[in-house]
This record gives sequence, C-alpha cells and structure tokens, in this order.
Amino acid sequence: MESFFKVRTPAEVIALLDRFSPCGAEEVPLEEAFSRVLEEDIISPEDLPGFSRSTMDGYALRAKDTFGANEGLPALFEVVGEISMGENPDGSVEPGQAMRISTGGMLPRGADGVAMVEYCHALDTGTIEVSRAISPLENVIQSGDDIKKGSLVLPRGHRLRPQDLGVLAGLGFVRVPVFKQPRIAIISTGDEIVPAAADPKAGQIRDINRYTLGAFCRANGAVPAFEGICADNFDRLKSTVAKGLETADAIWLSGGSSVGTRDLTLAVFETFADFELLVHGISISPGKPTIIARAGSKPLVGLPGHVASALIVAEVFMTPLLARLSGVGESGDIHERGVKARLSRNIESKSGREDYLRVRLRRAGDAVLADPLFGKSGLISPLVEGDGMVKVSVHTEGLYEGDLVDVVLFR
Amino acid sequence: MESFFKVRTPAEVIALLDRFSPCGAEEVPLEEAFSRVLEEDIISPEDLPGFSRSTMDGYALRAKDTFGANEGLPALFEVVGEISMGENPDGSVEPGQAMRISTGGMLPRGADGVAMVEYCHALDTGTIEVSRAISPLENVIQSGDDIKKGSLVLPRGHRLRPQDLGVLAGLGFVRVPVFKQPRIAIISTGDEIVPAAADPKAGQIRDINRYTLGAFCRANGAVPAFEGICADNFDRLKSTVAKGLETADAIWLSGGSSVGTRDLTLAVFETFADFELLVHGISISPGKPTIIARAGSKPLVGLPGHVASALIVAEVFMTPLLARLSGVGESGDIHERGVKARLSRNIESKSGREDYLRVRLRRAGDAVLADPLFGKSGLISPLVEGDGMVKVSVHTEGLYEGDLVDVVLFR
Repeated sequence: MESFFKVRTPAEVIALLDRFSPCGAEEVPLEEAFSRVLEEDIISPEDLPGFSRSTMDGYALRAKDTFGANEGLPALFEVVGEISMGENPDGSVEPGQAMRISTGGMLPRGADGVAMVEYCHALDTGTIEVSRAISPLENVIQSGDDIKKGSLVLPRGHRLRPQDLGVLAGLGFVRVPVFKQPRIAIISTGDEIVPAAADPKAGQIRDINRYTLGAFCRANGAVPAFEGICADNFDRLKSTVAKGLETADAIWLSGGSSVGTRDLTLAVFETFADFELLVHGISISPGKPTIIARAGSKPLVGLPGHVASALIVAEVFMTPLLARLSGVGESGDIHERGVKARLSRNIESKSGREDYLRVRLRRAGDAVLADPLFGKSGLISPLVEGDGMVKVSVHTEGLYEGDLVDVVLFR
Repeated sequence: MESFFKVRTPAEVIALLDRFSPCGAEEVPLEEAFSRVLEEDIISPEDLPGFSRSTMDGYALRAKDTFGANEGLPALFEVVGEISMGENPDGSVEPGQAMRISTGGMLPRGADGVAMVEYCHALDTGTIEVSRAISPLENVIQSGDDIKKGSLVLPRGHRLRPQDLGVLAGLGFVRVPVFKQPRIAIISTGDEIVPAAADPKAGQIRDINRYTLGAFCRANGAVPAFEGICADNFDRLKSTVAKGLETADAIWLSGGSSVGTRDLTLAVFETFADFELLVHGISISPGKPTIIARAGSKPLVGLPGHVASALIVAEVFMTPLLARLSGVGESGDIHERGVKARLSRNIESKSGREDYLRVRLRRAGDAVLADPLFGKSGLISPLVEGDGMVKVSVHTEGLYEGDLVDVVLFR
C-alpha cells in the first residue's frame, strides 16, 4: 500500500480538528443536565426574583421614616401585620407603619427597606422603636436584581455547572436544550491482545486501552461504546469499523504500533465513503504513529497501541476533538488547565518534536516541585505514578532544573 | 427552644468532619470503576508485562554479536524465523542468528536485544547485515519492567483515573473493590418554595437548591436523592428527614435563613437517636447559619437557604465531608485545587470571619486577573458569572489590587 506520510505538527493537528462539528441536539430533564453543554443561548423569560424580597429578619417599612433615628432617638412605628413566607402581603405600609418580615419574605406595598430585627425593639404588641436609620432598598433584593427578563443568562456552548442548573431552575427551565454527547466506538486491535478477564499465554497481553480510553471519554463528556478486540486482519477490522460507524459518532482504534498494522489501519479507513486522510503521524513523543482521518463528518482515529502513547495523544488531541464534537465553546486546549510547578531536575528533549514528560508533583515548603518520571516508552507505571504531564515544546532541547513549567493534571 | 450557639471557625469545622467515616464497600465491574475510590490496596498478582517484549520493529538477536558493528563493517546474521504477535516463539536464537520481530512481539530464547529495522539490511531471504551495535536490553521491555509481582500498584483511598483502570486491566482485575458512593438526601425547606416546574405566585420562588446541591453531589462522586420540598412545619420536616435517613447516608437540608426556621431545623434534628450537635454557625461569609450535627454515624446538615451561601458552604465544607464519606485519601481541602491569579482591585473584608468572594478570571497578557464580582448576598448571578472564589482569611481586613490569590474554580 502506498502511504503518503502526512506528518503534522501538534498545532496543525489541532487546527485541522476544526473540521469536525457537534453531533446534534436533544432536550434533557434539568436534573440530568449537569456537565452537559447548552445548545442554545438561554434568555431569561422573566425577572429573578419575581418580587422584591427581604434579605434579613426584621420590619419592612419606609426608609425615610427612619432617617435621623439613632439609639438616643429611636423612630416609632405601628406594627400593622406580619408577612407570611410565600404569601403576597395583604394591605400596604403607610407612613409610620411597619410589618414583621422574615428573610425571603415579600416586601409589602409602600415599604422600600427592611430594618434588621437587631435594631428593632418592641414596646408593646403593636409598636416598635427602630434605633438606626436605613437607606432605601437596604436589606432588600428588588425584582430583577438577580436576572433581568430578556437578558442572556447562559450562552450556547457553555458546560453546565451546579450553579448554572440553579439559575435555570430559578427561571423555570425544567428541560434543557443540550448537544448530544458524542458516542465513541473504541476498538482494540492486535493479534496479541486478549480480554482483561483472560489468562494471557506467553506473548499475549490483556486489553488495556479499552478501559483507559473509555474512562477518558467519560471524563470528557463522551460515551464510549466498546466494539471489542479485533485481530490484525483486513476484513475483520473493516467490518468492526463499519459496525462502529452505524451507531457511533467517531471511531477510535488503538493498536498498530508496528509498521504493518499501521498500514492496515489506514487501508481499512480508506475503504469508507467520503474518506479523507488528515494526519498520518504527529511530531510528538510519545504518540508519533497517530492517524486522523474522516469518513464523511465522522472522525476516524488510529491511536498508538502503547497505553502511555495512546493516553497522551488522547489528552493532547482527543480532548479538543471531543470539545468540537460536544459543541463546547472552549477550545479544549489542555494547557488552559495547567498548574505551575518547578522542575526538580534537567530534562533533555529532541528538538523538532513536542515531548510530553510524565511528572509527579510534590510540595517543598511553599513551592510545588515536578519530579520527572523516567522509564521506557510503552510503560504504564509512569502514568499511574504521575500526577500530570509537562510539554517540552518543539523548539527547545530540554528544560532546566528550577524552570517554572505548566503541568497538565491527569484526571 | 434553647439553642446553645456553637459558632465554629472554618478550621474547627473541617477538623470535626473527621468524625465521619466511609459508607461501606462494594465491588464493581472495571468498566464502571472510573472515578470510584479504591477500598483496598491493590497488590500486583503477577509481573507486567508477563514476558520480555520488543518496543520496536526489527530483529531479535544477541546484543554482543553486534558489538563493533558499524556502517563500514556491518555484522552478519542468519535469519532463523519470524515471531508472530501473540505467540510464544518457536526455537531460540543462537550466536550469529536473528529472528524478525514486530513492536510488542515476545523475545525468543537466547535473544537479549532488538536491532531496529532501520539499521538492518537484507542480503537475501536468509541473511541480514546490522550496521549498528546495540547494547543488551536495547529496545526491550523485560518481564516485570512495568509492574513487579507483589508490589503495591494503587493504594486504598485512591480515586481511579483512566490510566489506573488501564493498569488494573493489564493485571486482570475485572472487578474492583471500591467504597460505596455516599447517598445524600436533599431536602429543600420553606413555605415560599415551589417546584421548578411551577409558576410561582407573588411571594413564592422556585426550588433552586435541589438542582445546585444535586449537581454538586455528582461532581464529588456522591449520589443525590431528592426528598422533595418541605414546608416549615415540625411534623412534616421530621417525617421527611426520617424518611431520608432510611436510605441515605446523610441529610442535607437547605433553607431556614430566618431565625425561626433555623431553630426548627435544629429542633427536628434533635429528635433523632444518638444526636450530637457539632456546629451551629460558622465564622464565614456567606454561609454563617450552617448547622452540622449527627444522628449516629450519619451527618445531618442544615445549609443556608440562599443558593449562593448554600453552594459556597458546600464547596468549603461539604467537599471534605464527601471526601470522608467516600473514603478518598485526599483531604478534600478545596484550596489544593486553586489556580493563581492577581486581584484586579481592592477588597474589604470584616476581620474575624473568613470571606469567600466570587471572581471572574480574565487573561491580560501573561497574567491571569481575578475580577471580584460584587452583588448583594443571596444573588445567584455572581456565581453564574463567576469562574471561582477567593478566600479572604479570617485575620485580614481585605486584599489589595495586585495581590496574588488562589482561586478555587467552580466546577
């Protein structure tokens, strides 16, 4: 097979991911909307709160009737009622009158402020004195103070956090328009791969990527669909990918770290309608032998077989891919979620490629140190011992002890 | 009711949370174990990999037979076979012999290194020359290089990440011993609260905390169980809490921002067997009127009714509480997940209490700035507009523009 090698830089790869779009929209109940991505701008249909409320326990009154009041010269008020929670108060507050109100209670007509109970003293059941002046709107949230009718509450592409669900509930949205979660078909390939439940014979290893990539999908709001382990056989691989494409929004195939199996992956991908090869190799370590293509609008990804390489490629490139497929407005650039740390020793790197180094974080006094974890490529233990990874950019030949670096935390 | 006020500092509250323990253990299938917390140390039952593997495509041979080889004087080898993936190689490599091997293939007996295919040149079907010396173990992962039999792979209390599931799969763990996820009964109280689906009348507001606290539980690995909206009525509140305690591991009741309803919450909590009041008020803003008690081993929490106060109390104190109930080995101290930013303006704070300020992050060149979001307490919009919060510690009277602060990101 003729393989015209399209080795790309990491930046080129990420730019190419812009070709992919969200997988569609659906409506979900509000209680299931946590962490989902809004498919529409949310415009407030009403003012929140819908009425003026007290933020304190005390007496609702006309602020100007307290002007000049102090401990030596308290202002006197006639108590004309008590406001029940959840009720529209009967009657109104006239000059020199007050109504008992609790936190969250609705302000009665006529009142424009609340005197805190701490500054009110009951003379008898019908009279209080107020020993402090309040200003208009003091201890009051007015109708619309929180959210104004017609305002943009949350934008399309926003991932919903607990407080965002709260404001949606407050405005009466019990169903929410969200993007569909991308469904990713995960296929592990290789004649040597056996299920995790199996007892491997000499030469065989258990399927690791299924679990690692599946959890990675979940961590990024996607739904993994396991299509099983597939031997390095053109026809079987082709039918497995075809089956995955029936229901999934993307194919993630891992394996093929040897040249022959990499060629096989590409040969299989090429058989699908409206095929385009976007990336055949990335100038990154680990993770160089990565294939990204498309069949129509669906990404076809060939990830390295080594678990460490596969997971690092997933972190760096599948995070932004899933962001595109999920409709999330953020770039998905993982370097926006870095923590700063100082390298505890020198690191060499080959110029001309981006290196991703696994590190463990450690506190030393006020500083956070990043200890590089060395080990042959293809080992999983540095990922398991590690807290995150540090990028050594393509133009540098290494980093020095004491350099301040951005550590992208594993999740 | 006699309420002996136990106002605690935030540090005292967090120390008191150590009284609570994990909710029990269960075993789950590996594919459902993402983000769950290990209930046992995982000790490796075997070496990983279980056999010595090649990390490159090339020829398996005896490294010392290549010593001295270079482009001018290549070493000659007899090719005695090809190793199939997933197979235990037949025969062995004798002096002067080599076998074709692919990445991931099992090293044959006799071989102790792999010459990369790039340095091998086929003279005929049975002979190659190798133009570079390799050292013993070059391009080879030995049996046990990744994980040694009998070693501690992952400790009890560890929250499982994608790569952790990978190593468990590699070692054949298809079921995993984890702590149960705490089940939290969420109760919204208040005569003014109506369901989110309702059209509130004047004086009524929709239930927000149910959704906010429910999503907060999910974000922290707990399972929310909604027990509904309850009016400020002793008998109904008591039976709702009792019902919650039948199946849940903790009660989170929100509401009661007025003094009367706060007293009601405490009066209801006190009726349960083996009751102990731990916290009645916290020197924090917002969030002072918080109650933490226990009925036997189960936490009874009275959160403020205001959504902003409730969520901030949840972030600061319910994060570590859920860490205790989940068995997670980390402290749950949210300040360990801060990002650094510079304040864009001065902030005042009352000395004697911890203030939590909502901020929005913004990039300005290389710096990250935190813009304080002001607004009356009880508003949800500063939480929705905000990216996180900044602690103004109990002993300071404010922070200055340009101060470097830790921002705890909302999730």
